[in-house]
Amino acid sequence: MRIAQIAPLFEPVPPPLYGGTERIVSTLTEELVARGHEVTLFASGESRTTARLVAGRERSLRLDPAPLKSEIAAHLSMLDDVRRRAGDFDVLHFHLSHFQHFPFFEQMREKTVTTPHGRLDYVDLVGAYRRWPGFPMISISKRQRKPLPEANWVGTVYHGLPLDHYRMPAEPDRSGRPYLAFLGRLSRDKRPDRAIEIARLSGMQLRMAAKIGDGDRAYFHENIEPLIDGENVVYLGEVGEESKAKFLHEAAGLLFPIDWPEPFGLVVIEAMAFGTPVIAWNEGAMPEIVDEGVTGFVVGSIEKAVERVGQLAGLDRAKIRRTLEARFSVPRMVDDYEAIYAVQIARMGGGARTPLRAVSGATA
Amino acid sequence: MRIAQIAPLFEPVPPPLYGGTERIVSTLTEELVARGHEVTLFASGESRTTARLVAGRERSLRLDPAPLKSEIAAHLSMLDDVRRRAGDFDVLHFHLSHFQHFPFFEQMREKTVTTPHGRLDYVDLVGAYRRWPGFPMISISKRQRKPLPEANWVGTVYHGLPLDHYRMPAEPDRSGRPYLAFLGRLSRDKRPDRAIEIARLSGMQLRMAAKIGDGDRAYFHENIEPLIDGENVVYLGEVGEESKAKFLHEAAGLLFPIDWPEPFGLVVIEAMAFGTPVIAWNEGAMPEIVDEGVTGFVVGSIEKAVERVGQLAGLDRAKIRRTLEARFSVPRMVDDYEAIYAVQIARMGGGARTPLRAVSGATA
Repeated sequence: MRIAQIAPLFEPVPPPLYGGTERIVSTLTEELVARGHEVTLFASGESRTTARLVAGRERSLRLDPAPLKSEIAAHLSMLDDVRRRAGDFDVLHFHLSHFQHFPFFEQMREKTVTTPHGRLDYVDLVGAYRRWPGFPMISISKRQRKPLPEANWVGTVYHGLPLDHYRMPAEPDRSGRPYLAFLGRLSRDKRPDRAIEIARLSGMQLRMAAKIGDGDRAYFHENIEPLIDGENVVYLGEVGEESKAKFLHEAAGLLFPIDWPEPFGLVVIEAMAFGTPVIAWNEGAMPEIVDEGVTGFVVGSIEKAVERVGQLAGLDRAKIRRTLEARFSVPRMVDDYEAIYAVQIARMGGGARTPLRAVSGATA
Repeated sequence: MRIAQIAPLFEPVPPPLYGGTERIVSTLTEELVARGHEVTLFASGESRTTARLVAGRERSLRLDPAPLKSEIAAHLSMLDDVRRRAGDFDVLHFHLSHFQHFPFFEQMREKTVTTPHGRLDYVDLVGAYRRWPGFPMISISKRQRKPLPEANWVGTVYHGLPLDHYRMPAEPDRSGRPYLAFLGRLSRDKRPDRAIEIARLSGMQLRMAAKIGDGDRAYFHENIEPLIDGENVVYLGEVGEESKAKFLHEAAGLLFPIDWPEPFGLVVIEAMAFGTPVIAWNEGAMPEIVDEGVTGFVVGSIEKAVERVGQLAGLDRAKIRRTLEARFSVPRMVDDYEAIYAVQIARMGGGARTPLRAVSGATA
């Protein structure tokens, strides 16, 4: 197939550190190329890929040091580029969250698929989708669809991890004090306070490997910092890929006590990749991602979470890894996307071979 | 004429407090209605107007208490609405800054005019404009055009004030200590530190009526707050319309020592409306707005500013008001816009009567 992958311009593909969307786009793109597809990646110019790269912007919006950048204008330009070349592709796969591409492709919506990577409960999205109905949408969990039930959902594709990047050593080093892990941003939504409370009541150490964003600094200083004692509650700061692997792998379990409708939760499956079970709050996609009693537990209260901490050691870590391999691997993710592309192309009834009406922005 | 005015959805039209763009859109709209035009205002639902209001969003983005709002999706919906009704108008006047409307109207760009109300030196704007060349643009100063010289500039229209809202009392109360005024946001760009230094070296009191935005709080606490002594440097907080009038009217002069390419500077002409002269930095549109030695002075250094403070009393306040009335009144502003609309409609060569090809988003 001739496939265009259209990434947001916020981070390079793959991103140097954070950027779940750009990381998934990268993994998907590389695997599609490996499978012999003709793939073009529309993304920021710093991206690294084996696909053909079309730079929507020389630098990503976050890494560009220019003081005044227009997110809107940058994406408009890239989308215009995609549209001009639309005839070169059988399918256009958008990874943008706020529908900015809809007006560009309304004449050929059936040629597109859109994976929104974020939450969809923004009040303006329902109204906007009603104006561009029919755009084929792919959710990253079933729960993600909830705020937008009317959309033309054509599939759910759970994220997948490149398994060879997540290799388990034969025997982890568990000679130190056993600990629970917290990984992610230290924001109110992620409820690090709940994690601290669960660890305290369980008599376990909590280690937090986390970024503190600019918007979270006040929350951190007022609510979390006073609870860090370096003994029972340890703050490790941001961790690189290698330390993260060790950190997740050697943990007794990952705590994910979120308080928002997380549409997926990459960190949860990263823990599973190391055989580490998860105790997750019953929010967002958690009941879909966690296999109860196999890869972890979904809970609704501190008390229940504490009870589950005592049961973590009884879970089979090899089975957790096997479950991850079956449900959340890159090959499975790419199989799913390929199948959707094929269905969409078939639905077009050979539309991909029909020359599309040129919708050019340059002819005034 | 059948005119559509399209305002941003950030504030109601007119705005309750801040919002220069929405205020100008309101003034323009009301005067066009008074002149007998058939005007439709696309704006947030809280707007008040004698024109026909089409609510692009029930509440403005800033006043809506919903936690998750999508600026992009909100404007997409409104723009789709405008496009569906485009056939009802002779001219569509956009007041959006980042070109989000261009893809919607590329088939009828000659029917549009766009007044960008902000600075144009965002690195992404040049590239985006190149993709949608020819869109007729109206600048609010000649200086504003500088970062976008290739654009199809069809006129410059300076802002105008509704003169009856700015009535000068016969004799201002100047019984108190004479003072210099600073009005606006207390941000780094506005250089309140320069204003404080100028006042100090002139031996004048400085009164600051200013808002402190969330992003400016750290700058304010670190750099400005320590200089406020309540005696020589007085901070009044935010002021309402009535106090603002008195504040500007009774000042010896307004200091506007900005450090950014301000494309217009509404505060400067508001001071002039009360006969109050201005000492402005040689940045952005200041040399166009200030008539040197008549309505104030444009300076390039603290020393020069201090020298000019000594000359403020020599300026004729009645003449300042007359200059404002001649150059920056609503009737003059609306004359200018009407003239541009007429030229654009004529250029279309009767295009307004030709039925436009329907570009509907609803037909999948």
